[in-house]
Amino acid sequence: MKAVYAGSFDPPTSGHLDIIQRASRVFDELIVGIGTNSSKLSFLNAGERSTLVTDACASLKLTNVSVSIFSGLLVNYCREIGANVIVRGLRAVSDFEAELALAHTNHKLYPDIDTFFLVTQPENSFVSSSMVKEVARHGGDISSFVPANVVTAMKRKLSG
Amino acid sequence: MKAVYAGSFDPPTSGHLDIIQRASRVFDELIVGIGTNSSKLSFLNAGERSTLVTDACASLKLTNVSVSIFSGLLVNYCREIGANVIVRGLRAVSDFEAELALAHTNHKLYPDIDTFFLVTQPENSFVSSSMVKEVARHGGDISSFVPANVVTAMKRKLSG
Amino acid sequence: MKAVYAGSFDPPTSGHLDIIQRASRVFDELIVGIGTNSSKLSFLNAGERSTLVTDACASLKLTNVSVSIFSGLLVNYCREIGANVIVRGLRAVSDFEAELALAHTNHKLYPDIDTFFLVTQPENSFVSSSMVKEVARHGGDISSFVPANVVTAMKRKLSG
Amino acid sequence: MKAVYAGSFDPPTSGHLDIIQRASRVFDELIVGIGTNSSKLSFLNAGERSTLVTDACASLKLTNVSVSIFSGLLVNYCREIGANVIVRGLRAVSDFEAELALAHTNHKLYPDIDTFFLVTQPENSFVSSSMVKEVARHGGDISSFVPANVVTAMKRKLSG
Amino acid sequence: MKAVYAGSFDPPTSGHLDIIQRASRVFDELIVGIGTNSSKLSFLNAGERSTLVTDACASLKLTNVSVSIFSGLLVNYCREIGANVIVRGLRAVSDFEAELALAHTNHKLYPDIDTFFLVTQPENSFVSSSMVKEVARHGGDISSFVPANVVTAMKRKLSG
Amino acid sequence: MKAVYAGSFDPPTSGHLDIIQRASRVFDELIVGIGTNSSKLSFLNAGERSTLVTDACASLKLTNVSVSIFSGLLVNYCREIGANVIVRGLRAVSDFEAELALAHTNHKLYPDIDTFFLVTQPENSFVSSSMVKEVARHGGDISSFVPANVVTAMKRKLSG
Repeated sequence: MKAVYAGSFDPPTSGHLDIIQRASRVFDELIVGIGTNSSKLSFLNAGERSTLVTDACASLKLTNVSVSIFSGLLVNYCREIGANVIVRGLRAVSDFEAELALAHTNHKLYPDIDTFFLVTQPENSFVSSSMVKEVARHGGDISSFVPANVVTAMKRKLSG
Repeated sequence: MKAVYAGSFDPPTSGHLDIIQRASRVFDELIVGIGTNSSKLSFLNAGERSTLVTDACASLKLTNVSVSIFSGLLVNYCREIGANVIVRGLRAVSDFEAELALAHTNHKLYPDIDTFFLVTQPENSFVSSSMVKEVARHGGDISSFVPANVVTAMKRKLSG
Repeated sequence: MKAVYAGSFDPPTSGHLDIIQRASRVFDELIVGIGTNSSKLSFLNAGERSTLVTDACASLKLTNVSVSIFSGLLVNYCREIGANVIVRGLRAVSDFEAELALAHTNHKLYPDIDTFFLVTQPENSFVSSSMVKEVARHGGDISSFVPANVVTAMKRKLSG
Repeated sequence: MKAVYAGSFDPPTSGHLDIIQRASRVFDELIVGIGTNSSKLSFLNAGERSTLVTDACASLKLTNVSVSIFSGLLVNYCREIGANVIVRGLRAVSDFEAELALAHTNHKLYPDIDTFFLVTQPENSFVSSSMVKEVARHGGDISSFVPANVVTAMKRKLSG
Repeated sequence: MKAVYAGSFDPPTSGHLDIIQRASRVFDELIVGIGTNSSKLSFLNAGERSTLVTDACASLKLTNVSVSIFSGLLVNYCREIGANVIVRGLRAVSDFEAELALAHTNHKLYPDIDTFFLVTQPENSFVSSSMVKEVARHGGDISSFVPANVVTAMKRKLSG
Repeated sequence: MKAVYAGSFDPPTSGHLDIIQRASRVFDELIVGIGTNSSKLSFLNAGERSTLVTDACASLKLTNVSVSIFSGLLVNYCREIGANVIVRGLRAVSDFEAELALAHTNHKLYPDIDTFFLVTQPENSFVSSSMVKEVARHGGDISSFVPANVVTAMKRKLSG
């Protein structure tokens, strides 16, 4: 069974890596899809985000995980690569309803696809990419929220 | 009893039409108020939205429904046209608190007005105007989310 | 338009009376339905609850409101008396989902019925029958939570 | 990958069958675990519930699904039968937090287990076993909420 | 400033101890109030619960914390001992509304009292007394959810 | 104990003043921190907001409250001025999760800081700075939502 875990990963957090690791144990193949939603300005470009996820996965020795950049509707991308499962992480109640609407929409657009949710581990439950960017921008320490390679990359980007 | 169902309708969805139809059975007169909130850029202009709602209501043969464009505070509009009921649709918990705050604010601003909520039918519970725009922009099929005339209008607008 | 506002009213609170008063302004006739759900033990019996609601409505001079005791499914009762609207009060997010499920169930069981929700006024938003009973049982002052006749009735019942 | 979908199924609903069908497409083997939680009185006994799920699955021609009765902690049952995935259905926000706590607890008790959530289809989002029992007890029509064999079984049980 | 942290503590969990420790740093004196609500059957009696909290606090060397058993309304107890602050822990959204209603009720009953909420640390966010009892009853390992002395006490009670 | 109540106060509302007043009764010293988050455009500038809060506090004769403008991370500001408590107001469930994430983040960044939440009084539960701005912009009456000096300031700003 081929599964896709899609998101912005701007930047990838420890919460994202946790979901990747756990989903990779259950599905034969896991594709991490880096979305390039042109209407939303990203802090890191798609190439930077792809490298960060790839390197973080390599540190965890996840052999059935690959990283890919996609654009357009997620269901079209899934259809294209023959994936029938979308994996999503849920942190909190406030994620839930938007995620539920998305899952129903995707199922309606492509009935062969189904969404499976994993809940983020408690210690990462309050971590989000936007919080990480906010803290990093003000010079705060983000090392408990993201993998080591992301700490370095954010510093370089912000000083660059 | 005269009631107002106000919103952006950018574009109108099957969820909106469902609320219009159900509210029109209970109130003597239902005015669908197309809000023109200058601070928020709309995809369709007010005239286009008004035509779409009017035509969709005509298909449903709703004789006590009229469509109108308004600006400014909703309570002022209600006072002006002599309406004492605001109708709102609730899709989900996340709508609820914003709607509740709005209802309390409106009642405080104009004590003669009261808000009545209808819950969206389950099959439309995940449909929103913004989701429809997102899907349509990427060439996805929106025909299960909006009335037929909206499908045509969105295609024309996006190709125009 | 005939509407039913059903509940346990064990005891009726200021929040209940607020909903009754506001709904009575919008619908031609409002029936307050006192449910006698045999599986749930009530503190006040149905007759006591009916009297309390009737008297509280009389104080408010609500002439299009009547009080009635019913058993069985609410939709069957509505069908019987020719009511097409169910009125419900919403206090909080946690009410919302149970209420939404109930509204969908009732609509499925009897498609001619629809549920309209009113939100409880802020000052009554935290008042519930069970809280009132809890406070009264421990001798606390319930006069800011219920109509005057309920204060007296609860005292008599608890000392009786 | 072996997965367990556990619950009370008292009685099984169309929502349960929907989750079983969708999970069976993704996991190699799906065991439906009928919990016998002695502290909670059930309406149907475990044998009746097991038969109802088995028959409903047979009608859907799901060949990789088996039904089993278990007692004690779910994680112990999973460990025993070599399952590493727990499947759960999510209907609503109010389910979410209890489910999240359960998933974290189970993961803490048995780190090799992980919980995957599927969201109930919109048309079943308001259906629950307790609602079905409530409607059936008052003679209401439950045929849009449960599989055909459950309609028959509930009638027999209630008249028996 | 004297503060009261009231609850059932049936049994006390690591989440409770975390709140006690953090509140004791901010208020001059913290009284842990063990509620004896006669209408709810407890697993451990009030004396056992009081001893468990007292011993767990002693291990943490909290010198401004005392433990006390009370009955009746919490606000009456606060008035009696001259406390003007109620401390409560919030784990999740689902706690929030009940807690909010309680805080408003208590403030209405005794305007000199105010409730301050602390959020449970992420790692304890899913821990509750009822979950601990459920796991312990089925022979599961509760040592990551409660202080060491509670593990021993629960074992003794369950085998006793 | 020194506490900080931080926010945008753009403009300060009756809800903000209520929290300031109640927190000032419990902590020895309360600093109201006016955040100047450069990424978010404010309606009133920091100086105007500071004056409005200062004057509103003066009317309430709160002698242990001071107002200060800060930029950067709140935890850094707290460390700088030696405050160990952050005070936050909670209006609704939808505030709660963002607030919880913020509290956990702040505690992780600076373990000596802890966040205490107060719930907004029911009558202010639906009041927010953005609602006040929206109403004021359309010429609506904001006098039940903000202190008297804010009514005047908003009028002057909008006509200026």
